[in-house]
Amino acid sequence: MFVKEGIIASPGIVIAKALVYEKIQVEVNKSKIEDAEAEIVKFQNALKKSHEQLETIRAKAVSELGAEEGAIFEAHAMVLDDPEFVEGVELEINDNHLSADHAVKIVTDRFYEIFDQMDDPYFSARAADIKDVGTRVLHNILGIVQADLSQLDDDVIIIADDLTPSDTAQMDKKRVMGFATNIGSRTSHTAIMARSLEIPAVLGLGDITETVKSGDLMVVDGLTGKVCVNPTKEQLKSYENEKLKYQNYLKELEELKDLDAVTLDGRKVELVGNIGEPNDVAGVLKNGGVGVGLYRTEFLYMNSEVMPSEEKQFAAYRSVLEAFPDGPVIIRTLDIGGDKKLPYLPMDEELNPFLGLRAIRLCFKEIGLFKIQLRAILRASVYGHAHIMFPMISSITEVRQAKTILLDCMKELDEEQLPYDKAVKVGVMIEIPSAAIAADIISKEVDFFSIGTNDLCQYTLAVDRMNQDVSYLYDPFNPAILRLIKQVTATSKDNFFTGMCGEMAGDPLAAILLLGLGLYEFSMSALSIPQIKKIIRSVRYEDAKKIAQAALDMETGEEIMDFVKDSMKKLNLNI
Amino acid sequence: MFVKEGIIASPGIVIAKALVYEKIQVEVNKSKIEDAEAEIVKFQNALKKSHEQLETIRAKAVSELGAEEGAIFEAHAMVLDDPEFVEGVELEINDNHLSADHAVKIVTDRFYEIFDQMDDPYFSARAADIKDVGTRVLHNILGIVQADLSQLDDDVIIIADDLTPSDTAQMDKKRVMGFATNIGSRTSHTAIMARSLEIPAVLGLGDITETVKSGDLMVVDGLTGKVCVNPTKEQLKSYENEKLKYQNYLKELEELKDLDAVTLDGRKVELVGNIGEPNDVAGVLKNGGVGVGLYRTEFLYMNSEVMPSEEKQFAAYRSVLEAFPDGPVIIRTLDIGGDKKLPYLPMDEELNPFLGLRAIRLCFKEIGLFKIQLRAILRASVYGHAHIMFPMISSITEVRQAKTILLDCMKELDEEQLPYDKAVKVGVMIEIPSAAIAADIISKEVDFFSIGTNDLCQYTLAVDRMNQDVSYLYDPFNPAILRLIKQVTATSKDNFFTGMCGEMAGDPLAAILLLGLGLYEFSMSALSIPQIKKIIRSVRYEDAKKIAQAALDMETGEEIMDFVKDSMKKLNLNI
Repeated sequence: MFVKEGIIASPGIVIAKALVYEKIQVEVNKSKIEDAEAEIVKFQNALKKSHEQLETIRAKAVSELGAEEGAIFEAHAMVLDDPEFVEGVELEINDNHLSADHAVKIVTDRFYEIFDQMDDPYFSARAADIKDVGTRVLHNILGIVQADLSQLDDDVIIIADDLTPSDTAQMDKKRVMGFATNIGSRTSHTAIMARSLEIPAVLGLGDITETVKSGDLMVVDGLTGKVCVNPTKEQLKSYENEKLKYQNYLKELEELKDLDAVTLDGRKVELVGNIGEPNDVAGVLKNGGVGVGLYRTEFLYMNSEVMPSEEKQFAAYRSVLEAFPDGPVIIRTLDIGGDKKLPYLPMDEELNPFLGLRAIRLCFKEIGLFKIQLRAILRASVYGHAHIMFPMISSITEVRQAKTILLDCMKELDEEQLPYDKAVKVGVMIEIPSAAIAADIISKEVDFFSIGTNDLCQYTLAVDRMNQDVSYLYDPFNPAILRLIKQVTATSKDNFFTGMCGEMAGDPLAAILLLGLGLYEFSMSALSIPQIKKIIRSVRYEDAKKIAQAALDMETGEEIMDFVKDSMKKLNLNI
Repeated sequence: MFVKEGIIASPGIVIAKALVYEKIQVEVNKSKIEDAEAEIVKFQNALKKSHEQLETIRAKAVSELGAEEGAIFEAHAMVLDDPEFVEGVELEINDNHLSADHAVKIVTDRFYEIFDQMDDPYFSARAADIKDVGTRVLHNILGIVQADLSQLDDDVIIIADDLTPSDTAQMDKKRVMGFATNIGSRTSHTAIMARSLEIPAVLGLGDITETVKSGDLMVVDGLTGKVCVNPTKEQLKSYENEKLKYQNYLKELEELKDLDAVTLDGRKVELVGNIGEPNDVAGVLKNGGVGVGLYRTEFLYMNSEVMPSEEKQFAAYRSVLEAFPDGPVIIRTLDIGGDKKLPYLPMDEELNPFLGLRAIRLCFKEIGLFKIQLRAILRASVYGHAHIMFPMISSITEVRQAKTILLDCMKELDEEQLPYDKAVKVGVMIEIPSAAIAADIISKEVDFFSIGTNDLCQYTLAVDRMNQDVSYLYDPFNPAILRLIKQVTATSKDNFFTGMCGEMAGDPLAAILLLGLGLYEFSMSALSIPQIKKIIRSVRYEDAKKIAQAALDMETGEEIMDFVKDSMKKLNLNI
């Protein structure tokens, strides 16, 4: 028996047999070849075979996991057609007399290095894709068949170094009960996949593939981040107990699904979901979200090779609006720039992209693009309760500018006799400090606010939270952040509400504080909704206000965090 | 006669003859050479000659313009010794059979491209240096002697495409009355040089070298940004009139030198200077500054090839402190990172350097380096009124952390029996929004604040003001900025003062607002002190408070700016 601790990537407890999924270490033929033509043929055949495999996987991924997952394999297929890749390999074969396998390895590694070195999550993901697809071509050249996870006889926990999209797409999802891997983080593909499959996962265990054998009984505890291999009888009993407790807790949460998010003394708030595409609506409904607090429309643009047409956007927005006949759907206009780029919209390199041409600033520069989106939202607005939200607003001047463009679009639609909701709600993200500080001024021009805590924190504390050297300074509990939130919620009144769509809104530790600070709408990833609802339903608003007021008088984020934990204990709230 | 408008780079009006300073267009020999050895000898001789020239220029620059200007030519000499440059040229000659001149041109252009493409002011300056020194070597190979500005018979206005450090260093400064150039900006070398020589300059005129002939009579009006070539009699008279008015205004300012910065109704504030090195003290004294509000110590580090020793720093700090026996000297600890780098301190590339490992954050990581500086400041503190100021503070936690390190240094000095001022004042820059918002909390731990408006504005509005796509959003008059300033000055009390050392403190349009918002100490570039003093001495504090209060209720920066201009007109304050 032994216990190892790793990174919590997906919650829950599972007890099952281990299946060690080992990647085949490929040796390429490094001698100089003479018949270049034969190697080119091998390479071309492998490309063809890879194309066929990817199409099969893509179809499976779309049907089992949704369009977003399927898009990964479209991107893989694009690499196979990329002239830089194909001609690069052929050049190595023809000019440097390399074997097809050696050439593919060298070109793949070269591409990988280039993308991996860019300190940008978008390009890191591209690097992983390139490695995945390069390995596929290599296997096909060498006739290697990777162990197959698509048909499993037993329920298993997959033990691996790391899992690629190709690995997880083919997996027999009915039999896979959990993941434990050597490497990975909360945002790696394996983690995202585990959460989407709702199975426990502990990653970053270092050498789990070396220390566990297939068939070992093991526990993956995604609540504490521990794995226990070949547990003792007592341990097993204790884990089974914890598992039961967690299942009861989940059941309890499920029972809350159709209940209001209302405090013991009657303060009702709104719990809604953050979504990236229409497919995500199902999760929000399943978890009892009454609407959408943040529809990140950029995925519509990022998952496309050309600018999405007005019709395509209209269809997407309409389908989300129709899913919530009674609840609000807040559609955020394009938030691109910063660390997010579009393949068909070339942007200059910037020294500080987070302080550069992002979101509404870019839309003001690309008014044509902006108007297509506004028209699509307006046209969809007749199908539900559409709310239009502008991101990265720094002053009332920008709100007026955006509204002028919106009015232009309305006039166009009037002329074209296309219907739209003339009373469509207009709001802004509060994610730049100046907007929070001048919230009272900006509130005159809009119907609602949604606080974006991720960016608000980054700017208010002057910290890029992706930068490991300074991310320790990123703290949503910092007194300055709480004061700004208070300043923003203070503008709320009848028919004007303040919400929040940053990660803080789904943080159980922040829920009482935010409630007490006067927040009305909490928008979060669908999975967090039940837990936050449970907390809201367990407290008195009057107590929450007192806790928030006391926190506002404290000096440091640490002190506030400790105080909130203490207060929750006193209220018998376990999270 | 014609008038052209360009960029205001240095104020004042001058009427004199034009001297068109044309750069020689060099043609290099592009045929393949046979005797590589002879070309190498030519190259080596040119290097030697360039070294000698640079030493002469450097000595002249140091004696006429100061150490900082001299350092530019040390950097040039370093390029001549750079193996990448020298071996690069020799490789082109030996392997590619290029002539020495062709090889130097190619290698210089290659270096220039690399540095110029980096979107970073530090590297742009390096690119300009490389071009300057490469041209020098090329001229020496080809025996070209550039027109000489070192001995002029007449007072002239220099007309050029642009001026390099080599051009300006050799110039006969007694005869050069103004600059007008095709390219350049407020921060280019030509602009900095004009302000340092206190002569008018208008830059960015496009084609002034094509449209003016040497000997033309012309006016450079650095107040409006216009140049007038071959003016009519009436124009000449009008310009002479304007020139006289400006001279009278300067005289008036000079007469204020030893007077207090006190309002008509008796509110006294402190006007002090921003300096980069001990040499700058002279300017502060000359312009009536009563102390130093910001000593940017990073120049001590940036102009050095190795870490400056404790002794070297001690000497620099002591000399500044001794220059102000009665006034405060605020020494800011190392503010490196962001766009400022040190050659001997390797730093990781960052995606958003302005939100990264800068200033105090870097000092916490490099405690050895930090302690050397703190010890040097402490030891110098017995020679005057030293104030230690920490940059980029985001929370009270960081203040406590910095003070703990300072206390360690004090203990060390106690043990070594080295004297220091035990009551040395400690303060922080307020340049991160969270610090302004939590100023009341942070004030408990320090003796003073100094608001850094440049960064405070950048973070509060989420705008990199160097980024041309978004710099239009950078606005210190934005209501959110004024509210933050008010929040910070509100913490001032007996023995605790709030100052400002960003550019806003020296902006005549902002002076009344800042006075009215309760600012006590205004720190600015020495040249701005007389003008700000004149404004302070011309208003009543009660009126300034009313103006500030009214501005705080306005919606946009534009509205506030217009209101301030109006109010100043009503008070008969012309700026």
